[in-house]
Parts: sequence; structure tokens; C-alpha cells
Amino acid sequence: MEDCVFCKIVRGEIPCDMVYEDERFLVFNDIQPQAPVHMLLIPKKHVKSISAMTDEDIALVGQMVNIATRIAAAAGISAKGFRLVTNSGKEGGQIVPHLHWHILGGRQLSGELG
Amino acid sequence: MEDCVFCKIVRGEIPCDMVYEDERFLVFNDIQPQAPVHMLLIPKKHVKSISAMTDEDIALVGQMVNIATRIAAAAGISAKGFRLVTNSGKEGGQIVPHLHWHILGGRQLSGELG
Repeated sequence: MEDCVFCKIVRGEIPCDMVYEDERFLVFNDIQPQAPVHMLLIPKKHVKSISAMTDEDIALVGQMVNIATRIAAAAGISAKGFRLVTNSGKEGGQIVPHLHWHILGGRQLSGELG
Repeated sequence: MEDCVFCKIVRGEIPCDMVYEDERFLVFNDIQPQAPVHMLLIPKKHVKSISAMTDEDIALVGQMVNIATRIAAAAGISAKGFRLVTNSGKEGGQIVPHLHWHILGGRQLSGELG
């Protein structure tokens, strides 16, 4: 996607504070962190949101959640606890229309989810 | 799990305001909703959290996210947008130690994620 910010990060056209990369996924620190640890996990493939998932993306999303748990453990936030969030569409709070998971932790998170 | 509240709901020992059920998953309305639509999606199998996922649970979790998007569409919150959240552990805000996804929507959600 030509103009997608996250696709530009994947292509290296915009820098990021990278945490993890493999053939299919990229994890980087959020530029506006809301917690001591706040990372974004994205697929390199452009998928608009979880609502745009095709059947073949189901396994991909399961793997993303699995990677999120491993990244949380590596960041030292797994034992005490962390939150995994994805927003779909405007009212969900999605800003960048490229599927991404927020991984948040490093302090006691609020019970307010929305 | 004998004392798990969500396992008791799965076994029918505690009532719930059910939205969806199939062989593996259950969706019901949160008893303390934080948005006009606030549902919980759980696996009938007791898994403590996403951090306790085994390799065989990866596909299960992918299917949960897919079901969440279909349930959100059926609830009429998909077009405008919704949020999908799971908390793992105390600092993440997890209260019931049985994997569950919060599906929230029906109004503009806050940009505060934690």
C-alpha cells in the first residue's frame, strides 16, 4: 500500500525503534507510549484490520498473538501482566488502517478498557 | 477447573446473558459493561491467559479473533468500529484467570488503552 505509514515502515522508508522482526511480522516501540512498555506488532502484509481478515489470515492472527506473548516475556512484562489490544475502525480508536496489536505493560494498567 | 467462574458458566452452574455458543467457544454480555456493547468471548477449554497458550492453542486463538469479528458484525458495531482486548496477569488488569477477549463498541472509544 503506497501511502500506508506502517507499510512505509516495513519497506524502511520511515524509521522505527525496532524490537523484533521476522519474515512476516515487525514489532516496534510506539512513538506515543501510554505505558512504560508500549509496542506495536504488525504483519508485513497489508491487512486493514481484524475485520478485513480472510480465512487464510486466521492462522496469521493466531501466530501474532503467540508472538505478542513471547515479545512481552522478552520485554519483562509477562510475569506481572500486560494487555493486548487491537482497534478496528474509527469508533474502536484505530488511527492507522493497517492491522496492529498494542502490547502494553510495565505498570498496573487501568481497568478502563474504552 | 473446579472454582473458575468462567468454567462454571461453561458448565451452566452460573447463568450468563449468552450471545453465541458453539462447541468450543462462548460469548456473553459483560455484567459490568463499559460501553453500549461489551461482550466477553471465552474458550470452553480452560486456558489461563494468552501467556499460557500452548502451540496447539495458536490456531484456537486465531479462530477466537475471527469469531470476535463476526460477533462484532452481528452486534452492529463492526462498520463504525470496535475494540478487542485481552488482559494477561494482574498488571494487565486480568480479573478472572480464564482466557477471555473483551469486545467493546457502540460509541466512540477512548484513545486511552491502559
